Amino acid sequence: MAKPLRVALIGTGFMGKCHALAWNAVAPVFGDVPRPELALLCEAGAELAAARAAEFGFARASGDWRDAVAAPDIDVVSITTPNAFHPEMAIAALEAGKHVWCEKPMAPAFADAERMNAAAQASGKVAALGYNYIQNPIIRLMARLLGEGAIGRATHLRVEMDEDFMADGAAPFDWKHAATSGYGALDDFGVHAFSLLRVLGFEPRAVTALMTKPYADRATGDGSRRAVETHDVASLLLRFDGLGGTILLNRSAWGRKGRIFVQIFGTAGSIVYDQERFNEVQLYTADGPRDRQGFRSILAGPVHPPYEKFIPAPGHGLGFNELKVIECRELLRAIAGEPAHLLDFSAGLEIERAVHAAARSHESGQWVDIG
Amino acid sequence: MAKPLRVALIGTGFMGKCHALAWNAVAPVFGDVPRPELALLCEAGAELAAARAAEFGFARASGDWRDAVAAPDIDVVSITTPNAFHPEMAIAALEAGKHVWCEKPMAPAFADAERMNAAAQASGKVAALGYNYIQNPIIRLMARLLGEGAIGRATHLRVEMDEDFMADGAAPFDWKHAATSGYGALDDFGVHAFSLLRVLGFEPRAVTALMTKPYADRATGDGSRRAVETHDVASLLLRFDGLGGTILLNRSAWGRKGRIFVQIFGTAGSIVYDQERFNEVQLYTADGPRDRQGFRSILAGPVHPPYEKFIPAPGHGLGFNELKVIECRELLRAIAGEPAHLLDFSAGLEIERAVHAAARSHESGQWVDIG
Amino acid sequence: MAKPLRVALIGTGFMGKCHALAWNAVAPVFGDVPRPELALLCEAGAELAAARAAEFGFARASGDWRDAVAAPDIDVVSITTPNAFHPEMAIAALEAGKHVWCEKPMAPAFADAERMNAAAQASGKVAALGYNYIQNPIIRLMARLLGEGAIGRATHLRVEMDEDFMADGAAPFDWKHAATSGYGALDDFGVHAFSLLRVLGFEPRAVTALMTKPYADRATGDGSRRAVETHDVASLLLRFDGLGGTILLNRSAWGRKGRIFVQIFGTAGSIVYDQERFNEVQLYTADGPRDRQGFRSILAGPVHPPYEKFIPAPGHGLGFNELKVIECRELLRAIAGEPAHLLDFSAGLEIERAVHAAARSHESGQWVDIG
Amino acid sequence: MAKPLRVALIGTGFMGKCHALAWNAVAPVFGDVPRPELALLCEAGAELAAARAAEFGFARASGDWRDAVAAPDIDVVSITTPNAFHPEMAIAALEAGKHVWCEKPMAPAFADAERMNAAAQASGKVAALGYNYIQNPIIRLMARLLGEGAIGRATHLRVEMDEDFMADGAAPFDWKHAATSGYGALDDFGVHAFSLLRVLGFEPRAVTALMTKPYADRATGDGSRRAVETHDVASLLLRFDGLGGTILLNRSAWGRKGRIFVQIFGTAGSIVYDQERFNEVQLYTADGPRDRQGFRSILAGPVHPPYEKFIPAPGHGLGFNELKVIECRELLRAIAGEPAHLLDFSAGLEIERAVHAAARSHESGQWVDIG
Repeated sequence: MAKPLRVALIGTGFMGKCHALAWNAVAPVFGDVPRPELALLCEAGAELAAARAAEFGFARASGDWRDAVAAPDIDVVSITTPNAFHPEMAIAALEAGKHVWCEKPMAPAFADAERMNAAAQASGKVAALGYNYIQNPIIRLMARLLGEGAIGRATHLRVEMDEDFMADGAAPFDWKHAATSGYGALDDFGVHAFSLLRVLGFEPRAVTALMTKPYADRATGDGSRRAVETHDVASLLLRFDGLGGTILLNRSAWGRKGRIFVQIFGTAGSIVYDQERFNEVQLYTADGPRDRQGFRSILAGPVHPPYEKFIPAPGHGLGFNELKVIECRELLRAIAGEPAHLLDFSAGLEIERAVHAAARSHESGQWVDIG
Repeated sequence: MAKPLRVALIGTGFMGKCHALAWNAVAPVFGDVPRPELALLCEAGAELAAARAAEFGFARASGDWRDAVAAPDIDVVSITTPNAFHPEMAIAALEAGKHVWCEKPMAPAFADAERMNAAAQASGKVAALGYNYIQNPIIRLMARLLGEGAIGRATHLRVEMDEDFMADGAAPFDWKHAATSGYGALDDFGVHAFSLLRVLGFEPRAVTALMTKPYADRATGDGSRRAVETHDVASLLLRFDGLGGTILLNRSAWGRKGRIFVQIFGTAGSIVYDQERFNEVQLYTADGPRDRQGFRSILAGPVHPPYEKFIPAPGHGLGFNELKVIECRELLRAIAGEPAHLLDFSAGLEIERAVHAAARSHESGQWVDIG
Repeated sequence: MAKPLRVALIGTGFMGKCHALAWNAVAPVFGDVPRPELALLCEAGAELAAARAAEFGFARASGDWRDAVAAPDIDVVSITTPNAFHPEMAIAALEAGKHVWCEKPMAPAFADAERMNAAAQASGKVAALGYNYIQNPIIRLMARLLGEGAIGRATHLRVEMDEDFMADGAAPFDWKHAATSGYGALDDFGVHAFSLLRVLGFEPRAVTALMTKPYADRATGDGSRRAVETHDVASLLLRFDGLGGTILLNRSAWGRKGRIFVQIFGTAGSIVYDQERFNEVQLYTADGPRDRQGFRSILAGPVHPPYEKFIPAPGHGLGFNELKVIECRELLRAIAGEPAHLLDFSAGLEIERAVHAAARSHESGQWVDIG
Repeated sequence: MAKPLRVALIGTGFMGKCHALAWNAVAPVFGDVPRPELALLCEAGAELAAARAAEFGFARASGDWRDAVAAPDIDVVSITTPNAFHPEMAIAALEAGKHVWCEKPMAPAFADAERMNAAAQASGKVAALGYNYIQNPIIRLMARLLGEGAIGRATHLRVEMDEDFMADGAAPFDWKHAATSGYGALDDFGVHAFSLLRVLGFEPRAVTALMTKPYADRATGDGSRRAVETHDVASLLLRFDGLGGTILLNRSAWGRKGRIFVQIFGTAGSIVYDQERFNEVQLYTADGPRDRQGFRSILAGPVHPPYEKFIPAPGHGLGFNELKVIECRELLRAIAGEPAHLLDFSAGLEIERAVHAAARSHESGQWVDIG
């Protein structure tokens, strides 16, 4: 990759800042890519855009996201706005010949996600999704362990994802409680669960789901109460080829802050992972002397690429934001035409297909085939 | 209770020995009951019966379990034989006017469990089941915390039960792989899960289940392979009144030795419990300064009755066998006509009703009402 | 062992009850020893003695401990009274030709411990100490792992023992705060630490210690305050042959309930143990693929003798009281002239020698040789 | 701070890269400081310097560190070279009127550290040390908890620091085994332990230490063996005002990767911290219902400043490198004349004074006063 990429960033919230940090860090961390040119930052409001551009190190700013699409010097666009904006922005950018790095999920409506994927296929450009959890060196180790047969053939899967930002019933009704925002935990968290299963090699074939609401209604600003339309809790039974599994999701789970708990049981061992301690993984292998068998806790270190690009010493710990730096490096790899560890719009569409199938199964009380 | 009870024990396997230890320990531990008279031990084979009687401290022995029923001096019969024998033995003992302490589950066939319960109701005697996990002081604490509203109203439940005694695919076909033994993990483990939910105050209303087989067939003694008829893995979605939950069961889960993992989420906090560390429970309460909130790990101690009957110092740890001693004390309480913390045949029947409903839902792929 | 042993028990407090439970359980649990005859229970006060004898299953009772020594039918005497009584009782019992099972530590004064050991040597009888922690199947596994070289040559040792029964500064002055009770944590806890090191094969050669008092004085019953004379905290640096180590002791450590934390580092791995989770041990071995190395958590099970005598299933957990049952079986082995895993008065004397050396080092601020 | 600072970086190893990442990230993360100008990167060898400058985003490069001191446009110099170079570089930079951000420890020889501090005092410039662990929001929480009396008055302290990069006895002799590199674990790790105690408010008054060598000699390149001159293990007893404590250090501790284990016991509770899980802390407070007391595990989140500058969601986890970003922000604060949470050369000198006192106590076998 001889020439530095010129980058535009749309959005400066949680994920916008995360992208900005990644664009700043990718060259110092990896040392094998030209330092990207942070060309343009777009945010609603020109003044805010200018302030953020200065902080984030972008050369110029705009209050209109369309400038990122229109500017001829931009190679790649980071899209970090709310999901509802993704389709229009991503399609416009792809049609303008830009590579796109879009936060997940793709879109509230499946048809929009399909249009996004169609645009990506038509463009021939890289259209990557921001599934940063899959970039964790420990998740890569898990995929490698599975591939190498460390636990034999998988026989049972469980994924849980729980946080507590909706757990306070006294908190008022907000947009995430309206049906327009989606299903609730199912899409909010489900896409993460399916993305992890996907990179670990598991493709769901059928689903039945149950969704529940911890709180039937919530206070509004005017003193009345409004019925909650989304479900903070979703539980899915899943059939895979030759095995079964579950995905359990709860965004009203007091005390859980960023838990993604994965249990994979196989014919020769088991793997257990907890995102709240994402620099570790538990591995059990049914070999060696029986009185010494046990789950071993493996701490991330330089032997787990690309941890070594960040820190030469083991056990010191990567942070959540650094997973985005790894993702950024993979994006650059994809743009350079190299094999990359990324979920693109095509893979993302399969993830969202599963989510929508689960929602239908909740409605019907029946098993629903996926895809 | 002025007069010591006279006890017969049928069976001397895992649970038989556990009962014997409990009958020996209940008076020294609790100090408030007359020491039971260990009158008669029955085991298949008179010689074995005599040897075990000497070890276990029983006064006399018999190779025929019917002697326990026929002997006029026997007040209570411990039944610890394989499940298939429970109906005949329990019904005979109850009809002979004995109190019965029977290991769980009641019977492979639901109709037999119904007959057992009918006999119990007709007898007016105590008919208790050996759900010893519920006797754990920590489980009692959990029930008390729920009752006191420590985590508010429950909004979501998860129970997992996992062991690995079926995980080795090279192990030969045994009776637990035959359909005559039951469904597999669903009844083997499911009754434990439902029993815990029951004592914690949660009654399931509907279920849908998925059962899978890690191994399609297993080696037999003659060099051929036989199809496995039971399912080592079962996953259940459950509806309770006003909330949902899951029960996940796996007896082929490498590395899990005695795991029963319970997560209860509520409107004001959460409770998490792991049977592999059953002298502990995790409690999260959403109160106090926000920067100090976290799951607290409560270690069992004398403040958690009846731990103090065993050990005056906290954190020293009860053992699995000691839960049976507590159960024995509760049995004596029930026989004395006092309120007792026990699951009787009537409660046990509800547990088995739920298990059979789950099995039907697996067959039909539909939600099935319980009860 | 053809003939059942006839047992007398002196004392019925925490440890007295623990001995009684062990004497009741040893035959049912192990099944390879004649059931001991529980002949005589001695406790201060004839009435209390009679009540306890009934609960504990002893045939007769006495208000005078000397009856245990005088009775010609007694083979073995359990001594579970406060430490200050040990010398007189143990020496009398040994001189009367009884085997002695005495709780630790031997005596407050080293000279008394020496006298006890001299009496034991002169008697030719078994004189065993109640170091029950060393009976844990997991501790035996640790000893075996060390012996087999699982972690190579040991290079560094750390033992911590912490509880919080002295942590409340508002609690009044009691006898454990008076110098007559001993040094404080140093002897109260230190003997446990040294006993574990001993069975793991480590003999201390020199020590320097620091003792401190969390509370300078405490309230007395009459409204005044009295200076605390013992030290709730003790920290020891130790030299062993070819390696160093530490013992850290605190009985005012809020939140620690029964923690004994052992870390053993070696040339090929490490072992970590926590008594608050005493059915587990952590083992790290520096072998195999480097990206899979980690501390493994081994759960106690039937592959760790004599766990299988209690429970045929792994991961179900022994309790603190059951360690005493194992100790009782070892005592019977010793009495039968078989090799036994026990610390006798001779070994106990070495442990107490180390404790007193540590106390002198605290006084002098100098390293003190042990033994 | 109106004007961006102009920065020179000397060194591009582990810590050099870490500084570079911090200089790149500090403005995007905090959003309240002008983006520093990365002006000059110095590394041995002009070609390497130029390559790293391009990666790290520095405008120009030099093969001679003196250019960083001589360049009139430089405001602050990051010094990340081996310790032996610190004195010359730091003193030169300070004398040239630059602010200095120097990695710890200050220097192998105490006299050099004294000279560095004298230069800092004379210069009136900021002279900060790279004690990044103290920047952890969780460490700040611990300091706040102590300050607010959450655990009452501290009564006992324990700090352990363990890694295993020296644990392999087959690894050859390297410069860290030569006496010229210092004492071994004592200075390598001890400075971290003392720095943490310092920011938590604990100042050591006297020390006695024991140092040991897991390996007496190691292979050299020429097939011979050379005696190891440094000690991989060091154990320190410490007196503070009114309480005692320990620091235990081991860089040959197989399985420990980045463990810094801190236990602080107080009159009203305890705090426990493990650097291998540095987004968590354990807090025990002896209040509320006794049956609910336990160590609570607090996960870092936006309520623990400045975590919220990195991630708006709790439990997602900061990484080791991000602690340096926080330190960088504190440095900027100090340069702006604002109160800053930093250890400067003066504080660093006290830390090194304690280390050298410990070394002397090991030599003499006596307690040594500190300071």
